[in-house]
Amino acid sequence: MTMTASTLKERSLLGLRELSADEIGSILDRAAYWESQTEKVIPVLKNHFVSNMFFENSTRTRFSFEMAEKRLGAQVLNFASAVSSVEKGESIYDTVRTLESMGIDAGVIRLKPVGLLADLATKVSIPLVNAGDGNNEHPTQALLDLYTMKKHFGELKGLTISIIGDIKHSRVARSNLWALQKFGAKVKLCAPSSMQAPELGAFASYVSMEEALSSDVIMMLRVQLERHAEGILKSAEQYRLEYGLTEDRVAKLDPHVIIMHPAPVNRNVEIDDAIVEHPQSRIFKQMQNGVPIRMAVIERAVK
Amino acid sequence: MTMTASTLKERSLLGLRELSADEIGSILDRAAYWESQTEKVIPVLKNHFVSNMFFENSTRTRFSFEMAEKRLGAQVLNFASAVSSVEKGESIYDTVRTLESMGIDAGVIRLKPVGLLADLATKVSIPLVNAGDGNNEHPTQALLDLYTMKKHFGELKGLTISIIGDIKHSRVARSNLWALQKFGAKVKLCAPSSMQAPELGAFASYVSMEEALSSDVIMMLRVQLERHAEGILKSAEQYRLEYGLTEDRVAKLDPHVIIMHPAPVNRNVEIDDAIVEHPQSRIFKQMQNGVPIRMAVIERAVK
Amino acid sequence: MTMTASTLKERSLLGLRELSADEIGSILDRAAYWESQTEKVIPVLKNHFVSNMFFENSTRTRFSFEMAEKRLGAQVLNFASAVSSVEKGESIYDTVRTLESMGIDAGVIRLKPVGLLADLATKVSIPLVNAGDGNNEHPTQALLDLYTMKKHFGELKGLTISIIGDIKHSRVARSNLWALQKFGAKVKLCAPSSMQAPELGAFASYVSMEEALSSDVIMMLRVQLERHAEGILKSAEQYRLEYGLTEDRVAKLDPHVIIMHPAPVNRNVEIDDAIVEHPQSRIFKQMQNGVPIRMAVIERAVK
Repeated sequence: MTMTASTLKERSLLGLRELSADEIGSILDRAAYWESQTEKVIPVLKNHFVSNMFFENSTRTRFSFEMAEKRLGAQVLNFASAVSSVEKGESIYDTVRTLESMGIDAGVIRLKPVGLLADLATKVSIPLVNAGDGNNEHPTQALLDLYTMKKHFGELKGLTISIIGDIKHSRVARSNLWALQKFGAKVKLCAPSSMQAPELGAFASYVSMEEALSSDVIMMLRVQLERHAEGILKSAEQYRLEYGLTEDRVAKLDPHVIIMHPAPVNRNVEIDDAIVEHPQSRIFKQMQNGVPIRMAVIERAVK
Repeated sequence: MTMTASTLKERSLLGLRELSADEIGSILDRAAYWESQTEKVIPVLKNHFVSNMFFENSTRTRFSFEMAEKRLGAQVLNFASAVSSVEKGESIYDTVRTLESMGIDAGVIRLKPVGLLADLATKVSIPLVNAGDGNNEHPTQALLDLYTMKKHFGELKGLTISIIGDIKHSRVARSNLWALQKFGAKVKLCAPSSMQAPELGAFASYVSMEEALSSDVIMMLRVQLERHAEGILKSAEQYRLEYGLTEDRVAKLDPHVIIMHPAPVNRNVEIDDAIVEHPQSRIFKQMQNGVPIRMAVIERAVK
Repeated sequence: MTMTASTLKERSLLGLRELSADEIGSILDRAAYWESQTEKVIPVLKNHFVSNMFFENSTRTRFSFEMAEKRLGAQVLNFASAVSSVEKGESIYDTVRTLESMGIDAGVIRLKPVGLLADLATKVSIPLVNAGDGNNEHPTQALLDLYTMKKHFGELKGLTISIIGDIKHSRVARSNLWALQKFGAKVKLCAPSSMQAPELGAFASYVSMEEALSSDVIMMLRVQLERHAEGILKSAEQYRLEYGLTEDRVAKLDPHVIIMHPAPVNRNVEIDDAIVEHPQSRIFKQMQNGVPIRMAVIERAVK
């Protein structure tokens, strides 16, 4: 499969910031098609090879992609690397080029260094799908989030979404922010000052927790406990009291509001244990929606 | 696939203690059917997804399940987790629920915390197959053990089986004990006092090594060297002298007696190097029998 | 599948030293056949199980085998073991015998202890394919190297190949040396004294870097930085100056010369960054050729 640069760019999914609302909409529509299929395996990608290259651990996201790929009948090659040995850009490049040389048709890639994925995409001739790159973007997560909201509310236009928590380190927040605004939804951000990303202030306002809870969608982020030097992060309990989605806070939410979280959750830190499977929570529904979304994305990359 | 609670319970395999002799017998019969097939892959589970979720390492058991699943044509998703990060029950629960949300049809699960599997099974709506939970049960191992005995002796009724070694930490011993008694076989236990499980004394007698060696089946257990604090466990050589299946002891066994071990073996600790592939040993035969047993168990869970 | 010892030997691939030029030639021819196929998956090994048993890490080689196996339609079982727990020969033996008992049709194996593979091959009754054993042989790497040279030069006879670098620890050097000589090619070796293998001096001469660069093929080896105690290995920069394939040295190469490396490369140690994808480099082409070579080798083992 030799592709022109423009075809390659159309097939890759590096981030949502660069996609138009139409392009995003067509992925959401195709996901709806895949979700409606009753057969588990529909081998449209039979005889195609997809490699999941995870230079940063993620059981759930890898599983979701693998499930999507196998439901499309693709051959799957999994790669998970001890980060230490390939953290450097050139090693990641060599690995991706190696797999490309071996004949894979598309690569799903997760990595830490910001900017490396965009650079990689100009150097290889297979479509790449971003499964999370540093704190830059996590486009399939945001696509499944949009899909989940659209299924619940019918349309995205006019919705208000609060993204609460560790905005600074969150690629999920960024991908959602870029995508939601294309559809005329309004995003509010809420975070303690140490977890704010000032550069996003131009696109969405930082609001108080009280105001954040007045939106249609409450999207909680995982506190990246491991990324905060001790002392900067308040204690987990203190965080919960100030920014956690506690049972008390949920009791006051309007019944039409839905609760989302990209998972995995820190129970009783950013979200109370009892809220994870609350009737207004869509957390496991988000995971379910991830599979048809990724089927649409992988099909778009390979077919 | 939506199941009623009773159907779900019939499809899951949490332990042998709760199964009737008839239920166990029908699994053994179905395993015989699978063993008799000459085609390696018979895709009765085509379009079904099975996930092997190992929260405790086990290359052999995972391989045996994977082989069984693939021989049935199932799609397989493997998950092995660094125990440290998911040792807590809620993390295991979240992982299983995540995979369920993504659409797997059954989960094979190995984990350490006793009691957690039974709890999990009440909370998810997919069949679960126990691949070893703490020191509670390891039902597919005992099923393949029974299958191996039945193939050799024709029937289980009237057999005497000695289980020798680290009874205290052994889920294999427990699953065999519960199952064998349902078929009218007699179980003897033999272990140094630090490795005895007093609560099993109500179901089987602890006997001397000499008496243990007079049974029809000598089932040696792996000494869980890593589980015994130094000082409690006698030295490996001392253990071998007192409770090991040495060449000398085997030389005195009646020719009709068979030797079993769930593997992996500690050569020259609980069993002498030269005995592992002795004509009376069924150790590699047990591994061979594990595949049709697991085919029967997985088919029962999913089909 | 029960095999006679001679059939088993013909199907296994333990090393190239023991193969005739005819046998090697027929693998290369078959690889050319596989390379010429346009369909990615041609399921001649449908219903066969191949296990990749890596007792030493290697993402690339495992991937290449997995790709080859899946392109042949085989069922693949991957095994990668923490070396620490199975470094001892008996553990590796038990693992291989276990997988054999479970019914795999062939095993691809990488391990560290030299001599163990040959011993294993006499004890199991499935074909084994060497994916690298200590510093002894790495036959599929050398096969793909020969294939790459033959594609470029038309024939191997009369070629001169310089192998430069850590000869002492290199199974790639050895497999190439044994194979190339069978086809009438001449091998020169070039290494600092601490990286020379004196026992190979009877088969090929150690030459200066200047003389090494006058060959038709410049085959650079990875410096096994991790295998050299500090002090023995000169600094990476010093190594590069004396034995590295620098841009300056490449500028002086005759245009017909090709550059090879088994990868992964240490950029700017044994080879300059800018040379890896130089027009005369065949490094990624080697990786590409590895897949049809391994298809031929796996087909030979299993079919």
